[in-house]
Amino acid sequence: MTAFERGEFLVRLQKTKQRMGESGIELLLVSDPSNLNYLTGYDASSYYVHQVVVVALEAEEPLWIGRKMDVACARYTAFLQPANIIGYPEDFIGSADRHVMEFVADTLRARGWATRRLGVEMDSAPYTPRCDAELRARLPEARFFDANLLVNWVRIIKSPQEIAYMKQAATLSERAMQTAVDAIAPGVRECDVAAKIYGALIAGAEDFEGHLTMNGGLFMPSGEKTSAPHLGWTSDRYRKGAATNIELGGCRHGYHAGLARTVFLGGPPSKLKSLAPVVVEGMAAALDRARAGVRCEDVEAAWRQVIQKAGWEKESRIGYSIGIGYPHTSWIERTASLRAGDHTLLEPNMTFHMILGMWMDDWGFELSETFRVTEHGEPEVFSRFPRELIVKH
Amino acid sequence: MTAFERGEFLVRLQKTKQRMGESGIELLLVSDPSNLNYLTGYDASSYYVHQVVVVALEAEEPLWIGRKMDVACARYTAFLQPANIIGYPEDFIGSADRHVMEFVADTLRARGWATRRLGVEMDSAPYTPRCDAELRARLPEARFFDANLLVNWVRIIKSPQEIAYMKQAATLSERAMQTAVDAIAPGVRECDVAAKIYGALIAGAEDFEGHLTMNGGLFMPSGEKTSAPHLGWTSDRYRKGAATNIELGGCRHGYHAGLARTVFLGGPPSKLKSLAPVVVEGMAAALDRARAGVRCEDVEAAWRQVIQKAGWEKESRIGYSIGIGYPHTSWIERTASLRAGDHTLLEPNMTFHMILGMWMDDWGFELSETFRVTEHGEPEVFSRFPRELIVKH
Repeated sequence: MTAFERGEFLVRLQKTKQRMGESGIELLLVSDPSNLNYLTGYDASSYYVHQVVVVALEAEEPLWIGRKMDVACARYTAFLQPANIIGYPEDFIGSADRHVMEFVADTLRARGWATRRLGVEMDSAPYTPRCDAELRARLPEARFFDANLLVNWVRIIKSPQEIAYMKQAATLSERAMQTAVDAIAPGVRECDVAAKIYGALIAGAEDFEGHLTMNGGLFMPSGEKTSAPHLGWTSDRYRKGAATNIELGGCRHGYHAGLARTVFLGGPPSKLKSLAPVVVEGMAAALDRARAGVRCEDVEAAWRQVIQKAGWEKESRIGYSIGIGYPHTSWIERTASLRAGDHTLLEPNMTFHMILGMWMDDWGFELSETFRVTEHGEPEVFSRFPRELIVKH
Repeated sequence: MTAFERGEFLVRLQKTKQRMGESGIELLLVSDPSNLNYLTGYDASSYYVHQVVVVALEAEEPLWIGRKMDVACARYTAFLQPANIIGYPEDFIGSADRHVMEFVADTLRARGWATRRLGVEMDSAPYTPRCDAELRARLPEARFFDANLLVNWVRIIKSPQEIAYMKQAATLSERAMQTAVDAIAPGVRECDVAAKIYGALIAGAEDFEGHLTMNGGLFMPSGEKTSAPHLGWTSDRYRKGAATNIELGGCRHGYHAGLARTVFLGGPPSKLKSLAPVVVEGMAAALDRARAGVRCEDVEAAWRQVIQKAGWEKESRIGYSIGIGYPHTSWIERTASLRAGDHTLLEPNMTFHMILGMWMDDWGFELSETFRVTEHGEPEVFSRFPRELIVKH
């Protein structure tokens, strides 16, 4: 039932344990939902209650500790033996005087792990200050280490199966973008287009289903709202003379491929006509630079050189490592960014969403691609969709 | 552009300030995305980066502090004056050596608020231990208080406009459930039904759009997976002789109305035929008990009495206060629960999702309604959908 073979999870755990060892951590407690999924396969929408995965150096499998009701969800989605799936009683839910981390601490103690060197994710939701305080109070002999992003950095290099899922996701992104372009027309309501886009993303392809985009959805501001990056849809009707920015992402087993384009109804204004080809050229330059052995900041510099020459600038980063997404973190892995000052070296099978979002005072333009760094030469771009301002007359 | 009038936000702030005063808090820092939305109207999918709303007793409007890129999103969705919308520079994003809470602390200091009695949400994502440590280090003269769920308890009583949005959401829930029931048939893929459900939820009604359900999605396990509550869909085809549990929720401007039913294809087994009417009767008893002045635990007791007599039991709570939902918290408000031991008194315009999920070893049954506690007499149930096991022959 799991989306990956047991052997793939064991490799992920081995890499995680290696990083734990290098950081002097014997026991790792993970609560970022994307990391829970990565280490065990667990895939259920239960991240609004506290739940953790615990990796011990000496144990082959991790422990999943979650709400009793969700043990069944773990049995269906995680690769773990039933003995490693542990449910806490339902009376921890909605209770002001009991905290789930009491149960977690007691579970660790029962395994003889109360004195371990314990890594926790200090800046990853939903691990809260109260979680941290409860654990420290109940495990006074443990030594605490900040293991923030430890698993995220393991996630940055994708396996062949992860790449395969991301390519399927990219197929869905392409289809959903075509659906959007076809549907946007004067008089049509934004929400009716949004409904069609979700339909295309979720119905999937002939031989596989799509899953729900886990970056909080679908951005499709229109008109002057194209100056804002993260807005959804309304029941307004599209009108001639307005642009719409569409940022969407297909999803397969939690793995995403982002894709953004701008659609204009009618004849675009000269500022948009002059910006769009610069962004297209900037993307070509940045993609050409995104090769194994190059630094993330070098990719951004290639982009910057093109747009500066044309008199434009962009303050925000132009991309980030993409992969598994759950709502707390979106599909952004929070490791490498394509930005000035990021010295991360590109390696084969790193995957990035390069998003060239140009948000001005009352207008904007977006162009994005999801790609894989290859062994030699240019990156492999996952979607095939015309790289231009899309004009519908 | 905001979904509520300025006056409604000011009432919310007044109630919040009253609770702050009662708790000895002068300055409240909120990071739960649902609370950001409640206090300001802010509604953009940017909760994967740190952002806060700050309520000061002496200031009429709160401050929104978020990523510079999202200032435009705040201008379009929050009721705040531009001076109260503050963006932090883009180089805080994806940076290991700078933390957003440094900027937040400096902003509070610049306003003369560095020595205040400061409330923070100690057990609400995405406020992390690192956030807490950075704030405390940078504001050593402040006194910190745990204001966890302070705003959530204000949210528990809904205004007429909030109720109106929830009723619209319930209309969408009804339509989506009917879409699901119509679409589920032997040979049809689960993902194609999921696509239609999302289409119905988002396209909305003739005169308003739907928004994306923010509880992590749509639960629709089929066959033996009806034993698990929080699973999505696959590309499996429905088959005769299997049950499907559907839990979905319409959404309007962040406000949800949950609705769950079980659909059976063919002739249901005797265990399901015997359980379903007991759950229906238990819901009738619990709804009849859900009147102003009654305790939450009394509602659960009315349910329990019915099912115990019939030889069934349910360990988990039977409902919770429902309203605004963002991914971190789902649509669950995390205040009152319909469960043994919850002494909260029901008051008019509290809204609950009563979800009677019966998850057995390898089968299950679900029935839910969203309702409002009324001034006198029985609660007002928002959706109209047959309250029974739905059998399709």
